[in-house]
Amino acid sequence: MIPVGERINGSFADVRAAILAKERKLIQDLAVIQKGAGAHYLDCNVGPAVYDEVGAMRWLIETVQDATDAPLSLDSRKLNVIKAGLSAMDTVNGCIINSCTGDERQLDVYIPLAIKHSASLVARTINKDGMPRNADERVEIAATIITRAMDYGLEPERLFIDPIVTPVNLFVEQDRPRYVLSAISQIRQMTDPPIHVICGLSNISRGARDRPLFNRTFLAMAVAAGLDAAIVDVLDSDLMDTWAAAEVLIKRRAQSSDSRQQAALMYR
Amino acid sequence: MIPVGERINGSFADVRAAILAKERKLIQDLAVIQKGAGAHYLDCNVGPAVYDEVGAMRWLIETVQDATDAPLSLDSRKLNVIKAGLSAMDTVNGCIINSCTGDERQLDVYIPLAIKHSASLVARTINKDGMPRNADERVEIAATIITRAMDYGLEPERLFIDPIVTPVNLFVEQDRPRYVLSAISQIRQMTDPPIHVICGLSNISRGARDRPLFNRTFLAMAVAAGLDAAIVDVLDSDLMDTWAAAEVLIKRRAQSSDSRQQAALMYR
Repeated sequence: MIPVGERINGSFADVRAAILAKERKLIQDLAVIQKGAGAHYLDCNVGPAVYDEVGAMRWLIETVQDATDAPLSLDSRKLNVIKAGLSAMDTVNGCIINSCTGDERQLDVYIPLAIKHSASLVARTINKDGMPRNADERVEIAATIITRAMDYGLEPERLFIDPIVTPVNLFVEQDRPRYVLSAISQIRQMTDPPIHVICGLSNISRGARDRPLFNRTFLAMAVAAGLDAAIVDVLDSDLMDTWAAAEVLIKRRAQSSDSRQQAALMYR
Repeated sequence: MIPVGERINGSFADVRAAILAKERKLIQDLAVIQKGAGAHYLDCNVGPAVYDEVGAMRWLIETVQDATDAPLSLDSRKLNVIKAGLSAMDTVNGCIINSCTGDERQLDVYIPLAIKHSASLVARTINKDGMPRNADERVEIAATIITRAMDYGLEPERLFIDPIVTPVNLFVEQDRPRYVLSAISQIRQMTDPPIHVICGLSNISRGARDRPLFNRTFLAMAVAAGLDAAIVDVLDSDLMDTWAAAEVLIKRRAQSSDSRQQAALMYR
């Protein structure tokens, strides 16, 4: 169970306003409360429509790491923004580069970058052919990613595959949540030990009325399929309880400190 | 989505007391509110330790059907109690006989009984060798049940396989929830269209501190695996919302009235 706190993201109006106004307190409060709520990593994304994304990412990383020692997830699809984040970090050990695609030219840049900085890497199962249309296309791209990462010598535990969760829609392409679940299950069976699988969970509920309901319901399904990491609202305690219960339900044996927490949660 | 209301069961102290005292109002109120909460069937079980189980089942069925026309699930492991329930019913069309095992001698009695009364039948994946130890044993017994039912000519939509949910336990035999999920998935792939798979959901959380959390989390996983019916607490609105959301997430297309409800639930 590797929760990544989603909240420091310029897609949220309050975070966007704080980035534009260089208002440190709001960002730092979000960092501290997310870590307190169980985030293993804090995602940092300057969001859309910030004029100077490179400068904003640098400020965001400096601001967050002045408030907490939680490892960070540098979230951008632009290489120069990721590099700005990496250069602003006091230490990059244990951070996540989030994300590259499964396009081989991108992998050839991002995998060496992750190795150089002892960082983990999220790679999405999308390539130059566009969005994957089913489970098989996701699994094929995942195979390309995993093979490339092994070729370069990225430690397997530093690789996270993101099978791309898109919003549930009752009337169009409703097979997509099934495809994601099937892809998760197949990707987790590709290697032993399995590669991490991560997703941006809240995407599933975009446009839905009761977003937390869809988030936690899909999370339970995805954990059963093998998902072990997710970018989530760690402040949603129903969601975090669901995750803990899901791990109890699918876990083979009590071992880690997480499992002890789950035992505490579970028994009367 | 076929919810069977679990509440009229002598395992609950209030129902047991009502059965012993022949107190009709409590039973009838439970019937009405469960139907109102979305139960497609009402499970009727006189529970353990009632002296005259046959008389109690007859009284229970008469009492419930005086209050509601909801179809009933006659829940007993004793054939004479099931028969008493059947004989007490005004009409047995659409009722469920719940349950027999996968033992062939039982199937040879219960399948013809279901056919004779135009009833549905729940068959548990257990036989004379005892509790199934993994997914494969459950699937093997399910295959025996399905074959036997087809041989006798029971309509496939009247057969419900129960893969037997046992309490989650963090320290002993923790593979069991996984086995059940795997068995559900395999049983649903055996025939086209698939046979119903049902479970007694609340068993998963026996002994747990936060039972509703484990119930709804496991339900989401089981629906993703293919579960389409369950004996549940229909008065647990979080659980019923989870079920509706899970169906939205895994359903291929909007068709039934259920789906329309789900759409209403879903969109802003």
